[in-house]
Amino acid sequence: MAHQPLTLNPDRLFPADPGVRAIARDLYQGVRALPIISPHGHTDPSWFSLNEPFSDPASLLLAPDHYLYRMLYSQGVPLDALGVSGRDGGTHTDPRQAWRTFAAHVHLFRGTPSAMWLNHVFVEVFGLDVRLSAQTADLYYDVIDAALKTAAFRPRALFDRFGIELLATTESPLDPLDHHHAIARSGWDGRVITTYRPDPVVDPEFDGFAGALEAFGDLTNEDVYCWRGYLDAHRVRRGEFQAAGATATDHGHPTAATADLSRADAEALFARIVRGGASAADAELFRAQMLTEMARMSLDDGLVMQIHPGSFRNHNRALHAAYGRDKGADIPTRTDYVRAMKPLLDRFGNESSLTIIVFTLDESAYARELAPLAGHYPALRLGPAWWFHDSPEGMRRFREQTTETAGFYNTVGFNDDTRAFLSIPARHDVSRRVDCSFLARLVAEHRLELDEAAGLAHDLAYGLVKTAYRLDEPAQGGAWNSLKSA
Amino acid sequence: MAHQPLTLNPDRLFPADPGVRAIARDLYQGVRALPIISPHGHTDPSWFSLNEPFSDPASLLLAPDHYLYRMLYSQGVPLDALGVSGRDGGTHTDPRQAWRTFAAHVHLFRGTPSAMWLNHVFVEVFGLDVRLSAQTADLYYDVIDAALKTAAFRPRALFDRFGIELLATTESPLDPLDHHHAIARSGWDGRVITTYRPDPVVDPEFDGFAGALEAFGDLTNEDVYCWRGYLDAHRVRRGEFQAAGATATDHGHPTAATADLSRADAEALFARIVRGGASAADAELFRAQMLTEMARMSLDDGLVMQIHPGSFRNHNRALHAAYGRDKGADIPTRTDYVRAMKPLLDRFGNESSLTIIVFTLDESAYARELAPLAGHYPALRLGPAWWFHDSPEGMRRFREQTTETAGFYNTVGFNDDTRAFLSIPARHDVSRRVDCSFLARLVAEHRLELDEAAGLAHDLAYGLVKTAYRLDEPAQGGAWNSLKSA
Amino acid sequence: MAHQPLTLNPDRLFPADPGVRAIARDLYQGVRALPIISPHGHTDPSWFSLNEPFSDPASLLLAPDHYLYRMLYSQGVPLDALGVSGRDGGTHTDPRQAWRTFAAHVHLFRGTPSAMWLNHVFVEVFGLDVRLSAQTADLYYDVIDAALKTAAFRPRALFDRFGIELLATTESPLDPLDHHHAIARSGWDGRVITTYRPDPVVDPEFDGFAGALEAFGDLTNEDVYCWRGYLDAHRVRRGEFQAAGATATDHGHPTAATADLSRADAEALFARIVRGGASAADAELFRAQMLTEMARMSLDDGLVMQIHPGSFRNHNRALHAAYGRDKGADIPTRTDYVRAMKPLLDRFGNESSLTIIVFTLDESAYARELAPLAGHYPALRLGPAWWFHDSPEGMRRFREQTTETAGFYNTVGFNDDTRAFLSIPARHDVSRRVDCSFLARLVAEHRLELDEAAGLAHDLAYGLVKTAYRLDEPAQGGAWNSLKSA
Repeated sequence: MAHQPLTLNPDRLFPADPGVRAIARDLYQGVRALPIISPHGHTDPSWFSLNEPFSDPASLLLAPDHYLYRMLYSQGVPLDALGVSGRDGGTHTDPRQAWRTFAAHVHLFRGTPSAMWLNHVFVEVFGLDVRLSAQTADLYYDVIDAALKTAAFRPRALFDRFGIELLATTESPLDPLDHHHAIARSGWDGRVITTYRPDPVVDPEFDGFAGALEAFGDLTNEDVYCWRGYLDAHRVRRGEFQAAGATATDHGHPTAATADLSRADAEALFARIVRGGASAADAELFRAQMLTEMARMSLDDGLVMQIHPGSFRNHNRALHAAYGRDKGADIPTRTDYVRAMKPLLDRFGNESSLTIIVFTLDESAYARELAPLAGHYPALRLGPAWWFHDSPEGMRRFREQTTETAGFYNTVGFNDDTRAFLSIPARHDVSRRVDCSFLARLVAEHRLELDEAAGLAHDLAYGLVKTAYRLDEPAQGGAWNSLKSA
Repeated sequence: MAHQPLTLNPDRLFPADPGVRAIARDLYQGVRALPIISPHGHTDPSWFSLNEPFSDPASLLLAPDHYLYRMLYSQGVPLDALGVSGRDGGTHTDPRQAWRTFAAHVHLFRGTPSAMWLNHVFVEVFGLDVRLSAQTADLYYDVIDAALKTAAFRPRALFDRFGIELLATTESPLDPLDHHHAIARSGWDGRVITTYRPDPVVDPEFDGFAGALEAFGDLTNEDVYCWRGYLDAHRVRRGEFQAAGATATDHGHPTAATADLSRADAEALFARIVRGGASAADAELFRAQMLTEMARMSLDDGLVMQIHPGSFRNHNRALHAAYGRDKGADIPTRTDYVRAMKPLLDRFGNESSLTIIVFTLDESAYARELAPLAGHYPALRLGPAWWFHDSPEGMRRFREQTTETAGFYNTVGFNDDTRAFLSIPARHDVSRRVDCSFLARLVAEHRLELDEAAGLAHDLAYGLVKTAYRLDEPAQGGAWNSLKSA
Repeated sequence: MAHQPLTLNPDRLFPADPGVRAIARDLYQGVRALPIISPHGHTDPSWFSLNEPFSDPASLLLAPDHYLYRMLYSQGVPLDALGVSGRDGGTHTDPRQAWRTFAAHVHLFRGTPSAMWLNHVFVEVFGLDVRLSAQTADLYYDVIDAALKTAAFRPRALFDRFGIELLATTESPLDPLDHHHAIARSGWDGRVITTYRPDPVVDPEFDGFAGALEAFGDLTNEDVYCWRGYLDAHRVRRGEFQAAGATATDHGHPTAATADLSRADAEALFARIVRGGASAADAELFRAQMLTEMARMSLDDGLVMQIHPGSFRNHNRALHAAYGRDKGADIPTRTDYVRAMKPLLDRFGNESSLTIIVFTLDESAYARELAPLAGHYPALRLGPAWWFHDSPEGMRRFREQTTETAGFYNTVGFNDDTRAFLSIPARHDVSRRVDCSFLARLVAEHRLELDEAAGLAHDLAYGLVKTAYRLDEPAQGGAWNSLKSA
């Protein structure tokens, strides 16, 4: 059987109506080649500090991508067979065999964003021109494997080729940030910054919290077992993260709950937390209080807050036991914002020098809660369609359900939120195409003028993210810049 | 820089597909010029009784419109700078300066219904033909200010020019209705009616409830501190509102909870309420019981009930302290109808002589709860897309999510629900365009015949509202008509 | 007045854009004439065993169809007037008069799926060519009544004419399955199978639970008052249902709650249940535990599980008292899946030999909960848009909100779920048209290749349902096949 050709249609994702499509195409031409700013993601900074070749197609493209292996798992393919490592660290599956298994199931992705991202990578990054299938699995493996061995496919070369202006990674407060320091010292001019993600020492229910707290004290030389010292330890590390370029923090809590306890109540709560065995209610209250504490620190140091609530982590008990966290078994839950965020908003919501970017996995909150909140509180902005909703339909629903109440200017551009480095251009391209399509419909329906749409397309692709994440401001810490210029 | 032209495209809001657009245009031509019936709104009746000129552009268009100033506030513009008065009553901002600040931020409204409403007012009411911007702020101010000083822009002249057949305002049970009486006696033939909105004496958590209750007794000469007298006081005032033209009541509760207590339990609850310091649970139960009481009275006097639940009022604590109610800080919440309304529906839901119009700010209830309820209970009808959802996308979602289960005939046409008088024609025009666009799609997809769509367009724009609000029936009270003819 | 013509446009339900429509038409041609597989419905098996003529138009088309009479009821038409029987069993309304009342209100169905289904039946089944209206009511009645008296309109003839490959009915565990046995013995080659729906003996709050439990024991000769015997009785009947062709069970619980109690706790709970007067919490826990027990049995016998949660049954108290169950007064409620299904999923979710098909009446769960769950757990599949959402807009939302996360292959094709036998071809046709329209949009937007879409269209109309319901496997019980061939 002849292989089926693979091409990327230049009009993909644009509306089918010829008139609207022409407008979308026009708007897209204005933003297609803008640099990529990726202010929130999960790539590995060691890639850019060490700049070593990626090992093989399966380990690069398949094993780290839970969007991919969760779908195969849902149809009965064991994770082992895809090269996903268990808690014991090992996998005995040959990468080529894992790739073949993946290729044999690629029809499962029809109509999903993963299919679009993959095809973009296959065509644009690797120059493949036939579709992936069981028949072409080895051809794919060979072409990709060969490419990865060349200099042009090392991390920094791809970073440059992708037109990335800035890439943020996400690190734990326990991370020494060595890779970021190494990048800064390396002379390479790629801008890779970190983000302060304190969940391991903020969430009492996080795996290994007690040990993390101890390490937090060791690293900062603060007495993290008293409330004041614990907060100071955060201040220390936030400063160090800023020195490594961070402009933002990130908080992945089960809910959007916030609290604003008195000093005495907060101290008493913290005492119960460090004693160990805190109740679920205390754990929730502590996470809630810590969001308000983080906002207070942000008012001082200027770091932008990101709140990513509403994921029920590790829903699959047996899979979690065998494979650990982040294996495609996190499930969104209904998420309240109106009552949950009131304590924090009552305290700091009117501060226009504070930026809190809120995300959701519960789309029913877009029009009902999030757009009204962001359309009122100076401190609030809406993060883009996230995770399961980082998709053409998800982005469209985001714009349709938030724009009329919050406008475009209370949103913050696109986040790719990915650990799949090669898919970053594909993901930004999808976002630009979907936003241009939405704008084109408004223009075609005479709800927006063409020049307004062109300005908005630019802002949504480039301008808003830069402002919202304060990437256009001189670094607060200063040290990062001096490291860069050293 | 040359000013950019401002026009209203005759095809605005119609679908882009040429075939569907042609059908929508055709349907719209049949309803474009129908008289406006505005059965639920918040304009000030003194405008029509006194018929004095509006003072200036900012005080007319900006300061009362929370859709506008909430968006600027969300981007850091203080309310003072926009001429919004605080609780102390004053603002020291010059109206022209407030207008300039607004004009400099008008890009924030791109893609919002406010932008469409404003442009409609600018072009149709004031004949402006350049876009509003920082550069044209003074031009706008001067043109509008000059117009407002002329006879053609007095309230009654605009009312007539707008083709308003009927306009309902909303008054507290404590309102003497003097302005409505004055209008009736004036000889002007504009029909401005009132609506009975008893929240201040029904909601124990309303600001100033105790004082309002006392005034309620004084006004009605009923013993409002006993349950029977309190209910009689409502009956007295409902009758007086009917005499001033009212055909409806309106209830803005935090939730849709209803109750059906025994007489003894209701009396005991009321005793706890009037004693003061009622618990939150008692306050909620009392509001719930009062909806059932109001339904019972409606069965007697024929007033249509409107229930507007699900807004978390005055969410912003500091803003509420400084500026008071209704300052753009009301946030929708998740709202249950199925369990909440069961007590009332068990009591009166099968009464086809009763009309209860239910609204929602929680769109997730449209297809799941509200359409099934309204598609079954004879007493229930669905109010139109409301408040944050009074917008092209919001109206489209309303039709897409309610029609298949409730049909069109369990809905009640359009409400503008506005205090922005000049925007009333714009809002009704948007509604007619969006409904015609929805119908056009059904016709284009052969889900509806063109003649059926034409009939429906007329019903949605004019027929249903008249029937649902009983505006085509002889007034129950009689007195209002006799005042009119006196 | 001349009657208005009635035709079915061959392009109905396809998108209006000519390019997308052409693709949709093309895809639809490939699936239009595929056999109908109806794996979940509520037709009466006695129709096919006895093969007697249907009695009259109103009794066949109107009285059993709660989609129809609920809409008229919502507008004040009494159920009696439509020939719907009360609990006392009788209706005194002449069928022709009921039909006239229905015809006079047919405008209420504009824009609803009922209108599409009815017109399909009128044109395709009865050859009518004018629209139904008050004027044509008698013409309709006469044409349909005459047809029903002919051999071509007997149940088996229609079954064959409709191209039904398989039709599943739903029976209580107390049903002797006589009609299914009679069909099997009859020599007619129509495949009508049963489905095991144990709610009457699983739900302690079901009307007549105690009597049903007793009958369950009598029928199975098991001691159903002890936990082990009760479970064995289910095993007995499941086996007998399989012998009568069943490949699935069905569970219509108020919520999606599941439980995984220890043996001792389950026994103690069951003891409280059989004692009578169980608390609401115990009843809920028992239903929850029984879903897990049913899953355990499905692992043994291979029956596919269907869970239909989230309907508040018999919401209208007075109507339920007078008319009984299933009279159009069931209202969907908000439904949680993430926490509710965790006990069952923790126990059996990773079993790829188990198939649990989950439905919802709460569309907000599609993208947030159901697609992520089905896109991960091997045992889970998503049932199609259900009941109020079995409609063009409902199906479109289902695809738009589930495909990007769960893909197409974690869904199971279409269910008509109907007792309206004549509408089965209409319903499947709507589903095929809407799915082809969705696929056509993906093709037009270059998100899917045309050949992929053609394969998917076939799978969604025919392939997936056959696999998911194990209709392509040799029957487990064996007895049914031997009866057939006997």
